[in-house]
Amino acid sequence: MIDFSLPAELVELRDRVRSFIEEKIVPLESDPRQTPHGPTEEMRLEMVALARKAGLLSPHGPKQYGGLGLDHRGMAVVFEAAGWSTLGPLALNIQAPDEGNTNLLNVVATPEQKKKFLEPLVRGEIRTVFSMTEPDGGAGSDPSLMKTTARQVGQDWVIDGTKWLITGAPGADINIVMARSIDAAGRDVGATMFLVDMDAPGFRIVRMLDTIDSNSPGGHCVVEFKGVKVGPERILGEIGAGFRYAQVRLGPARLTHCMRWLGAAARAHAVAVDYAKRRQSFGQRIGDHQGVGFMLADNEIELNLCRLSIWHCAWLLDQHDRARDETSMAKVFCSEALGRVVDRSLQILGGLGITRDTVVERIYRDIRPFRIYDGPSEVHRHALARRIMNRN
Amino acid sequence: MIDFSLPAELVELRDRVRSFIEEKIVPLESDPRQTPHGPTEEMRLEMVALARKAGLLSPHGPKQYGGLGLDHRGMAVVFEAAGWSTLGPLALNIQAPDEGNTNLLNVVATPEQKKKFLEPLVRGEIRTVFSMTEPDGGAGSDPSLMKTTARQVGQDWVIDGTKWLITGAPGADINIVMARSIDAAGRDVGATMFLVDMDAPGFRIVRMLDTIDSNSPGGHCVVEFKGVKVGPERILGEIGAGFRYAQVRLGPARLTHCMRWLGAAARAHAVAVDYAKRRQSFGQRIGDHQGVGFMLADNEIELNLCRLSIWHCAWLLDQHDRARDETSMAKVFCSEALGRVVDRSLQILGGLGITRDTVVERIYRDIRPFRIYDGPSEVHRHALARRIMNRN
Amino acid sequence: MIDFSLPAELVELRDRVRSFIEEKIVPLESDPRQTPHGPTEEMRLEMVALARKAGLLSPHGPKQYGGLGLDHRGMAVVFEAAGWSTLGPLALNIQAPDEGNTNLLNVVATPEQKKKFLEPLVRGEIRTVFSMTEPDGGAGSDPSLMKTTARQVGQDWVIDGTKWLITGAPGADINIVMARSIDAAGRDVGATMFLVDMDAPGFRIVRMLDTIDSNSPGGHCVVEFKGVKVGPERILGEIGAGFRYAQVRLGPARLTHCMRWLGAAARAHAVAVDYAKRRQSFGQRIGDHQGVGFMLADNEIELNLCRLSIWHCAWLLDQHDRARDETSMAKVFCSEALGRVVDRSLQILGGLGITRDTVVERIYRDIRPFRIYDGPSEVHRHALARRIMNRN
Amino acid sequence: MIDFSLPAELVELRDRVRSFIEEKIVPLESDPRQTPHGPTEEMRLEMVALARKAGLLSPHGPKQYGGLGLDHRGMAVVFEAAGWSTLGPLALNIQAPDEGNTNLLNVVATPEQKKKFLEPLVRGEIRTVFSMTEPDGGAGSDPSLMKTTARQVGQDWVIDGTKWLITGAPGADINIVMARSIDAAGRDVGATMFLVDMDAPGFRIVRMLDTIDSNSPGGHCVVEFKGVKVGPERILGEIGAGFRYAQVRLGPARLTHCMRWLGAAARAHAVAVDYAKRRQSFGQRIGDHQGVGFMLADNEIELNLCRLSIWHCAWLLDQHDRARDETSMAKVFCSEALGRVVDRSLQILGGLGITRDTVVERIYRDIRPFRIYDGPSEVHRHALARRIMNRN
Repeated sequence: MIDFSLPAELVELRDRVRSFIEEKIVPLESDPRQTPHGPTEEMRLEMVALARKAGLLSPHGPKQYGGLGLDHRGMAVVFEAAGWSTLGPLALNIQAPDEGNTNLLNVVATPEQKKKFLEPLVRGEIRTVFSMTEPDGGAGSDPSLMKTTARQVGQDWVIDGTKWLITGAPGADINIVMARSIDAAGRDVGATMFLVDMDAPGFRIVRMLDTIDSNSPGGHCVVEFKGVKVGPERILGEIGAGFRYAQVRLGPARLTHCMRWLGAAARAHAVAVDYAKRRQSFGQRIGDHQGVGFMLADNEIELNLCRLSIWHCAWLLDQHDRARDETSMAKVFCSEALGRVVDRSLQILGGLGITRDTVVERIYRDIRPFRIYDGPSEVHRHALARRIMNRN
Repeated sequence: MIDFSLPAELVELRDRVRSFIEEKIVPLESDPRQTPHGPTEEMRLEMVALARKAGLLSPHGPKQYGGLGLDHRGMAVVFEAAGWSTLGPLALNIQAPDEGNTNLLNVVATPEQKKKFLEPLVRGEIRTVFSMTEPDGGAGSDPSLMKTTARQVGQDWVIDGTKWLITGAPGADINIVMARSIDAAGRDVGATMFLVDMDAPGFRIVRMLDTIDSNSPGGHCVVEFKGVKVGPERILGEIGAGFRYAQVRLGPARLTHCMRWLGAAARAHAVAVDYAKRRQSFGQRIGDHQGVGFMLADNEIELNLCRLSIWHCAWLLDQHDRARDETSMAKVFCSEALGRVVDRSLQILGGLGITRDTVVERIYRDIRPFRIYDGPSEVHRHALARRIMNRN
Repeated sequence: MIDFSLPAELVELRDRVRSFIEEKIVPLESDPRQTPHGPTEEMRLEMVALARKAGLLSPHGPKQYGGLGLDHRGMAVVFEAAGWSTLGPLALNIQAPDEGNTNLLNVVATPEQKKKFLEPLVRGEIRTVFSMTEPDGGAGSDPSLMKTTARQVGQDWVIDGTKWLITGAPGADINIVMARSIDAAGRDVGATMFLVDMDAPGFRIVRMLDTIDSNSPGGHCVVEFKGVKVGPERILGEIGAGFRYAQVRLGPARLTHCMRWLGAAARAHAVAVDYAKRRQSFGQRIGDHQGVGFMLADNEIELNLCRLSIWHCAWLLDQHDRARDETSMAKVFCSEALGRVVDRSLQILGGLGITRDTVVERIYRDIRPFRIYDGPSEVHRHALARRIMNRN
Repeated sequence: MIDFSLPAELVELRDRVRSFIEEKIVPLESDPRQTPHGPTEEMRLEMVALARKAGLLSPHGPKQYGGLGLDHRGMAVVFEAAGWSTLGPLALNIQAPDEGNTNLLNVVATPEQKKKFLEPLVRGEIRTVFSMTEPDGGAGSDPSLMKTTARQVGQDWVIDGTKWLITGAPGADINIVMARSIDAAGRDVGATMFLVDMDAPGFRIVRMLDTIDSNSPGGHCVVEFKGVKVGPERILGEIGAGFRYAQVRLGPARLTHCMRWLGAAARAHAVAVDYAKRRQSFGQRIGDHQGVGFMLADNEIELNLCRLSIWHCAWLLDQHDRARDETSMAKVFCSEALGRVVDRSLQILGGLGITRDTVVERIYRDIRPFRIYDGPSEVHRHALARRIMNRN
C-alpha cells in the first residue's frame, strides 16, 4: 500500500550522511585545491578517506566489494543528503561517471574485469571514464550517428575515432568506450563497449574543454583513439550489445543525477532562506515581502515534487521495472524544476548571488548542464510523445 | 518503506469505478437535464441510484451509514477514477460541498445531528450547503473580516448577514453556516457553525450568480440571513470553534478537489491524445509534430506529479498528520498544473476545443475556479512563505 | 525616425471613441438581448445606429462608402479603444468576420460586387460570413486538406462540401466561400472564393455549435453546401487565387484581432486594478500585497508590449510591407500575453472573478479562442521556425 | 506619427558598427588577455584605439569632447550593434559604469570637473568607478539603508564606509562615491556624490570578488573608505542631491544595459541558428524539429519585443520624458526575456553550449547579473505596482 515512510536504519544512515557532509565536507568547499576542472586527485582522495572512515563510502556499491549495497530508494535518500555539498558526491564516491560505471560493471563485467576495475572503483581508489558522445556530426542525442569504430583484427579490436565532452579523463584509470564494431568479415555488428587503458598506445587527450561547470575531477575533454588495440578480455559484455548496456547504465544514472541535484538545489534554497531572514529592505525582512516569499514557497513546492518523482522511480526500479517513461519524466522535471529553484535562490541573494561568496553561484553554473546531459529535455519529451502516440 | 503499490482490493474497486463511469455516467454527459447551474435534482438522484446499485456510492462515507469507509489513499485512487466524468463525483456522492460536509459532520456532529443529516447525506438522499464566504468587504481569503453574526438570545442564536458564492442552496436540505457569535453578554466569542434549515424564516436566496463553471447542482448564489433563529440543538460542535472546524473540513476537502480534478484533467488529456492520433496536418498525425507531442508529454509529466503529491498528502493524513504545508503545496500545484493540462488539451483540439462537441470545453471552464476556491494560490503561497520564514 | 507620437486628429478620434464606448456601449453590456450566440440583430443595429450618430462607424471602411478610411496605425489606436467593451467592435462595425471581409472585398471585388455587398457592409446594414475551415479531416491549420469543391458546369460553379466553425451565418446576407475548384475539364485549378447567397438552394445551416465564447452575432455553426450553384458574377477575384486572397485578408485581420483584444484585456486589467484598490485583506489593500501587485505590474508590462508590437506591424503594413513574420509574431505574443493578462485579472478578483458580476469572466471565455483561430500559436511558431531555418 | 524607420545616417552608422564589430572585435574574443575579471587594460586600450581609428568611439559622448553625440534612439541602434560582441561595448567605450558616468558627469559636473574627468573619459583614456551599493545590511535595493558617511570638517568632507560589488576599481582613475552627508552642524543633509581619487589616503580595495560574469575590466570588488578626505572641488553637483543624480544616471543607464544585452542575446541566437542548421538528428536538421524550431521562433519573438520596448523608451527619453514606468518595464522584460533567449540558445547547442567553444557560454554567465543590478526584477515590479495602486 502507498507508503512514504523510511525504515529506521535508513533514517539513521541519512542523518549520519547529513552530519558528515555538514561537518566534514562543507568546510572543504573553500579548499583552494579546486580548479575549474574540479578538485585535485589529492583532495578527492582525502575526502574519500574521510567517508571511508565514517563508514559512508560507496553507498551504491555491492556489499561484497565494500559498498553499502543500498537499493534505489535507499540511494534516493542518501544521495540527496550527499548532494547538499557540491563535494559530497565525490566524497561518497557516487559522482558521475563513476557511480554509473559501478552499476554498469556490476551488471555486465566478467569476474576478472570486476576484480580489476570494479573492486578498486567501489573502494574509491580509482576513477573511471565513460566515452560515448562525439563531436559535431557524431553521436549525441541521436546515437545512430556514432562514428567511432572498432574493427576486428584477429581476436583484437582496433578503435578509431574522436569522443567529445568526455568527463574525468586526466587521472582516471580506465575508460569505457562505445564504438560501432565491424567484425572480421567487415559487417557492422552494432555498438560495443570496450575497457580501454588510459595509457593505451594511440589514445590521447586532445584538449581540455572550458565549461560552465567546475564539478568534475579531470574536467571534460576531447579524446582521440588512433588505432587503439584492445584484446578480447577488454570487451565489456557482448559484442553488439553496447546500446542495450547504455540503457542499463543510463536509466538509473539519470535518476541518480536527479537525487544529487535535489540535494544541491535544497542547499541553494537553504542559503536563500537564511539570507531572506537576515536581510532587511523597506522595513521588513526581504522574505516577508511576497515577491521573495512566493519564490521561497515555489522552491519548496518544486523540491518536494522532485523528491516524490525520484522516490517513485526508485521504487519502480526496485521492483525491476525499467521505468523508462517515469525516469524520462523525472529527468525532464527535475532538471528544469531544480534549475528554477537554484535560479530563484540566486535571485533572492541579489548582488551576493552572483559572487562566489556563497555556494549558490557555483551550483547555478554546475546545474545548467543537467538539462542537457543524459538526454536534453527535448529528447526526453520527444521519446515520451512518441510512446504516447504509439500506445494502443 | 517507500511503496507505491496498491492493494488488490483497491485496484479492483478502482477498476469497477472506472467501468461504471465509462459505461453508465459518461453517456449522461450529453443529458439535456444539465443547466448552467448543474444537473437537475432528478438527474442527480438517477445517477446516485446507479452508483448505489453498483455498490459504489459514498466511498468516503463511514461504513456504518452505508459508505465504503475508504481512507485518504483509497479516496485518492477512487476519486480520481470518478473525476474522469464531469458527472462522476456527483454520481458517487463525493462532490463539494457535500463530500467535505460529510467529513465535517462525521467529526463534529452530535449523534442526533448525525442521524438527522449525516445519514441521509451518506445515502445520497439529501444535499447540503456550506456558507462561509461573504461579499466584498467580508470574509474570503481573510476570515477575520467575517461580518455575519449570531447573537445569543436566551438559548437561541439569531443570525444576520449575507453570504456570497454559496454553492448548491436551491434544492438543498441543510445549510452549515459560519457566523461570528456574540454571547448573551455581548462578547464576541469567536466564529461558530450552525445548522440552518433551508426554510428557516428570515433566510432567502437573494439571487443566483452566473458563473464560468456549470458543475454544481443548485449553482452558486447569494443568500441572506435576517433574524434567522436557531436553537441550541443546531449548534454544530462548540461555540467559538468555527475556524478550527473549518480547518478540519478544509484540509482534506482541499485534497479531494485535487483528486477529482486530476481525473477530469486526465480525461481532457485522453481526448487530446485521441485527437492527436486521428487528425492529420502537413503529412503526419498532429501528435507526431513535436509542437503537439511536447504538449502531450508535458501533460503526462504534470498529471503524474499531481498524482504523486496527492498520494503523499493522503498518506500523511492517514498517519493523522495535519499536513498543512503539504496540502497547501498540493493545492497550489494541482490547481495550476491541472489547469495547464486542460489548457494544452484544449489547444491541441484547435477549433474543436472551443466547442462543446467534446467535454474539454466544459472541463476548461469548470476547473478555472479551482485556482481560487479553498484559498487562491496567492493565499497558500503566502502561508507557505510565512511558515518558511518562521521556522527556526 | 523612430517616433511613437500620435497626430492630434487621431488622439481626438481615439478620445471620442473612448467616451462613446464608456458612455453608450458599456451600459449595454448587461442588456438581456445577448445570447450565448451573441447579441441579437436588433441589438446590433441599435449599437450601429449609435456609432453612426456619433460619426464613429466603420473606421476601417473606405471613405467613399462612408467609412473613416483609417490606415493601419489609425486602426490600431481606434480598435483598441473600441475593444474596451466586449460590444465595442460590433458597435463600430469592426468585428470579425465583417471587418476582414470589408478589407477583402475592397481589394478584390468587382465594382458591381462592391456596390452590392461592400457598400451596405461599410454602412453596417448587413453582416457577412467567411467560410473556410472544415470539419475533422478537412482544411484547418493545413489548408491543403480542403475538401469542399466547386465544379465548373457551363459558366456556373457547383459547390459541395461542409464547412465548420463558421461564424455568424444566421442573419447574415452573404457568404464568402473557399472551395477547391475543378474546371470544366476536370482539372483542379486551385482554391477560389465565391460569394454565396444565404438562401441559395442547397445551402443550409446544419447546426449551431455551443462554444466557449459568446461574442459573435449568429454564433458559430456547421454549414453544408449540396450542389449550390453560383454564377460567374459571384466569383470573388480570380479562379485559383483563393489562398492568395486569404492571405490578403488574414495578415491584417490577424492584427486587428490583436488590437481589439488589447482593448478587452486592458479593460479586464482595469477592473482588477479597481478591485485591488477596494478590497482589503490582512490589513491592507490586496494590491498592496506583492502577490497581487506583481500581477498588476506584469499586466502593464505585457499590455505595453502588445501595443508596441501591434503598432510596429501596423506601421509595416502602412509601408506596404506584408509583414508576415511580424504579424505572426504579434499574433502569437498578443494571443498568449493578453490571455495571461485576463487570467491574472480574473485571479485577482478571486471568487468575484468567476461570476458574471464583472465583465472579466466573459472576456476570459471570449479570448481563449484567440490562441486558436487565424492560425494557432503552434502553426505560427512552425512557420516562423521554417523561415528562420531557410534564411541564407 | 508612429514611425519605425531609421534615418539613412543612422543606418549607415549602424552598419559601420556591425562591420567593425564583426571584423575587428569578434576575432579578439579568444584573446588570452581576458581574465575572470575582464580584459586587461592593455587589451582595452587596443580596442579603444581600433574604435577611435574607425571613428566609432564614444557614440554617446558629447560631440565637443569627441563623442558622436547620439540621442537615445541613436544609442539604441548603435549599442545593440556593439553588443554583438561581448567586447564591443568596451571597444566603443560604452560599457558600464563608464557609459553611465559619462552621462552623469555631463549633466552634473562643473566645467573644471568635466575638463579633468569627462574629457579623458569620452576619449577612452581613463576608466571610472561608481560606488553606491554596500554589503549586507547597507544600501542595495533599498537605498535608505546607506551606511557610508561623509562628514563635513571645515570645507572638506571625510568619507567612511565600505562599498561592495564595486565594478572596475583596479586600474580606474576616479571613483564617484555616494555617501550620506553630515554637515558641520551634525545634521544629515542627504546623500551626496563625491569624486574620489583612486590613490586617496584611506581608500583601499579590500578584496576582489569572484563572480559569475567576466565582463568587466577590473572586475568587481569590495572597497573601503577610512577617513578619506575630499575637498569642496570634488563634490559632484549639490550637497544632498545624490539620490536625484542617481536617478539621472540610472534611468538611461538601465536602458543602455538593455541595448547592449539585446545585441549579445541576438548573437547567442545567431550562434544557435547556425548550429541548428548544421547539426543533424533523426534524419533532419535539428532546427527542423519543432522542439528546437519553436525555441528559435520564441527567440525572435522576444528579441523583437525587447527592441521595440527599448526604442519606445529611447524615444520618450528623447522627448525629455523621464519614462520611469517605461524604463522599469523595459528593464524587467529585457533582463528576463533576453535571459530566456540566451538560455534557449545554450540549450539548442546541447553539449557544445556548456563549453567555451562558442561565445554563448560566456553570454549565459555574463547576462545573469542583469536581472539583479540596476534594481532586481522584484524591486521594479514593486515600484510599478505601487504606482499602479496610487494612480487616481
